[in-house]
Amino acid sequence: MGEISDMSQKGPSTEESMHVFVDTRAVDRVRADIAAQDADNLAKTLAALDPADAADVLEQLSAEEIQAAARLAPDAFGADILTALTDNAREDILEVLHPRHVADAIGDMESDDAVQVVEDLDEASRAEVLSRVDPQERQALESSLAFEEDSAGRLMQREFVAAPQFWTVGQAIDHLRDVPDDTLPDTFYEVYVVDPAFHPVGTVALSTLLRAARTTPLAQLMSPLRAVVTPQTDQEDAAYLFEKYDLPSAPVVDQKGRLTGMITVDDIVDVMKEEHTEDILAMAGVHDASLADTVFETVQSRAPWLVVNLLTAIIASAVISMFSALIAQVVALAVLAPIVASMGGNAGTQGLAVAVRSIAAHDITRANTRRIILREAGVGLVNGLIFAAIMGPIAFFWFHSLGIAIVIGSAMLINMLIAGLAGILIPLTMKRVGVDPAVASTVFLTTATDVVGFFVFLGLATLILT
Amino acid sequence: MGEISDMSQKGPSTEESMHVFVDTRAVDRVRADIAAQDADNLAKTLAALDPADAADVLEQLSAEEIQAAARLAPDAFGADILTALTDNAREDILEVLHPRHVADAIGDMESDDAVQVVEDLDEASRAEVLSRVDPQERQALESSLAFEEDSAGRLMQREFVAAPQFWTVGQAIDHLRDVPDDTLPDTFYEVYVVDPAFHPVGTVALSTLLRAARTTPLAQLMSPLRAVVTPQTDQEDAAYLFEKYDLPSAPVVDQKGRLTGMITVDDIVDVMKEEHTEDILAMAGVHDASLADTVFETVQSRAPWLVVNLLTAIIASAVISMFSALIAQVVALAVLAPIVASMGGNAGTQGLAVAVRSIAAHDITRANTRRIILREAGVGLVNGLIFAAIMGPIAFFWFHSLGIAIVIGSAMLINMLIAGLAGILIPLTMKRVGVDPAVASTVFLTTATDVVGFFVFLGLATLILT
Repeated sequence: MGEISDMSQKGPSTEESMHVFVDTRAVDRVRADIAAQDADNLAKTLAALDPADAADVLEQLSAEEIQAAARLAPDAFGADILTALTDNAREDILEVLHPRHVADAIGDMESDDAVQVVEDLDEASRAEVLSRVDPQERQALESSLAFEEDSAGRLMQREFVAAPQFWTVGQAIDHLRDVPDDTLPDTFYEVYVVDPAFHPVGTVALSTLLRAARTTPLAQLMSPLRAVVTPQTDQEDAAYLFEKYDLPSAPVVDQKGRLTGMITVDDIVDVMKEEHTEDILAMAGVHDASLADTVFETVQSRAPWLVVNLLTAIIASAVISMFSALIAQVVALAVLAPIVASMGGNAGTQGLAVAVRSIAAHDITRANTRRIILREAGVGLVNGLIFAAIMGPIAFFWFHSLGIAIVIGSAMLINMLIAGLAGILIPLTMKRVGVDPAVASTVFLTTATDVVGFFVFLGLATLILT
Repeated sequence: MGEISDMSQKGPSTEESMHVFVDTRAVDRVRADIAAQDADNLAKTLAALDPADAADVLEQLSAEEIQAAARLAPDAFGADILTALTDNAREDILEVLHPRHVADAIGDMESDDAVQVVEDLDEASRAEVLSRVDPQERQALESSLAFEEDSAGRLMQREFVAAPQFWTVGQAIDHLRDVPDDTLPDTFYEVYVVDPAFHPVGTVALSTLLRAARTTPLAQLMSPLRAVVTPQTDQEDAAYLFEKYDLPSAPVVDQKGRLTGMITVDDIVDVMKEEHTEDILAMAGVHDASLADTVFETVQSRAPWLVVNLLTAIIASAVISMFSALIAQVVALAVLAPIVASMGGNAGTQGLAVAVRSIAAHDITRANTRRIILREAGVGLVNGLIFAAIMGPIAFFWFHSLGIAIVIGSAMLINMLIAGLAGILIPLTMKRVGVDPAVASTVFLTTATDVVGFFVFLGLATLILT
């Protein structure tokens, strides 16, 4: 006990430093400062927090509140906080900050962070801000912006440490001590060893460099490169390489294979979080979401998918209406049809989710595609048999009709087989035509299982019951 | 051009070293080796690949093929490949490897990797393997295994670098050079500075250490700790801290706040990938998935959710059957009812996906819960108004009935409002009762929107049309 209280004087205790949860009292203070229009206090409140915590606190506010805060105390929004904010919150703030202020903040950032800020500005503000940035930095920013969004070129920083392969450990360390601070990254984890044409040929971890004898040649110490990225590499592919090879950083090379930048794992962690959110939202049909969005903005981002869903629902209903006369005679069909469609939709969604993740992880290849398609068809067939065997008897006891039992059993079997195939074939086709399988697969799948489910069920009923 | 061909002789070219895609030719070779029962060639094929690439190749095989490979050439499955494999593929292999072999491989691993392997063994094999491991290592493994699965205690390694705060840079570097290799982590990115009671009080990045003068005291050089983890911390919360504070590693402290281990970012990247997959699968109702699974295993992992879905679909159908007499008179109701249910389900799923990600990111707190619930209710209301205004006229022209148009418009409005509320309230309730919101929220949501959709639509029809 004594030790714990002792510690709280020397440094943060475990509880205090574990900012897993947002400091809601700080949110209240910020709100109060905004309400009182107290710029000094607001600046103090934010400055007292770790920039990452300050960003978390600001992200709790609505878009109007964030903008009110930025108008009130623009100087409180320096490079650190702007870097730590999510894209959505940062965009809200950049709308109200003066271009001069944004340019100053960018001047204090590492090149990769600066790109993240500038890329979110609209054309006019971007030009305005860039015109106020130091010419050399502006040029670097413009060449990064020339790479596509979500490419490694946007993530990379221009600062990195390279050493020729004929250097010794001592020479590398002396060089690191001699170069001026601003030509080095804030933090780096390895030295890239380059050949005379500036092609990276290996890496030496700083932990290895520190422990080696000064006379050891780097060429002898270096590990072979496990992965190299180009500025054109998709950020998801870059993340895949970091995950696969456990990299702390990766060298970025230009078209001639020359070292031109570095991506560090902290940026990859951000990419992974972003992709995780995008995938979950895409599969639910949401384009983009920020908690700060208003009702109107939220409706705008969600309505397109709902319109598409309305169209597919109408198509499925049109299938039902083809069988109106039969339904008027046998109302049980109207009761049971949604069960057939729903089970197909759910079984298909299961296979779809597995396929989407496997495709993203590059786990589905030429070597196993056939086996996996066959497996999903097999799963659909077995599921169909199981649920036909369950649902047939239920329908029989519910409606006292052997015919209805046979119809729903057969329809379940066929629809779940189709669902199994659709769950794997739709995302594979999306991938092949270059569309993110997470984005539009769900709508095609449920359309297929609804239309097939209703048509097969009511069609079989027409054949068997009339 | 000359430079590129030059480079291919000196080191891997960009294309070659970018193993974004699995080497399917190596998969073919492995398959051929298994078919030919050629143990030597199989071992050579695997040894020629980077362990991470070899793991990727093996993950392309079916469970039976992987096990055949492990039986054929057990010695090819050393510490490196076992560490690089996914849990599912590794489990398949561990089933056929001799405990002595597994124990040897574990002896070659870092403590955190060893835990990942041992935790997947069943009770009997675990005891068998642990009895063959070096006693000191066994004790370390057992104390890690005492922590819950998916906790930081399972991720941490016992090897780390700590230095007292009164040391100088020179003393720290000399210490690093003097300690034997096997007491240090393979790679590390920072030195933890500790007080006399071994509480971490700061960190010094190796890049800072390398560039500082030998006489500088560490206390002067160190950055304050931004995050500390305990072995009990959930791995998702640990990942949240790494993402928030851009950490390359985090110190793990015991109950008395003393430094006891370290978590590195490469493990966090693996956790993030795992959680990403789990979330996508959980929202689709899949418990666990491996591409190597057979049809039978796959059905087993997906059937429970389908049974639950069948029950909820039957409940929804029971609601429809309450209105059988009306449907027999007005068949248009059977045609339109699925549209009302489907639009509610989709609108609710959108809000649900946003809520699930926001809760996982700790973005929903006391400070903004009320605003977000009100927003989702507002979104539901506006969506309801929009789609009532679209669907009412469509129904009118389709069935030439003002009554039906009014009924479907009103039902859409009510169901989409309920869907909006359910999409936020269900995951918040799950979180409060300690259930992962990704896991079971979908089933509750679709049950709610189906039951409410059918009941309100058919109930209003009873009131207005009869």
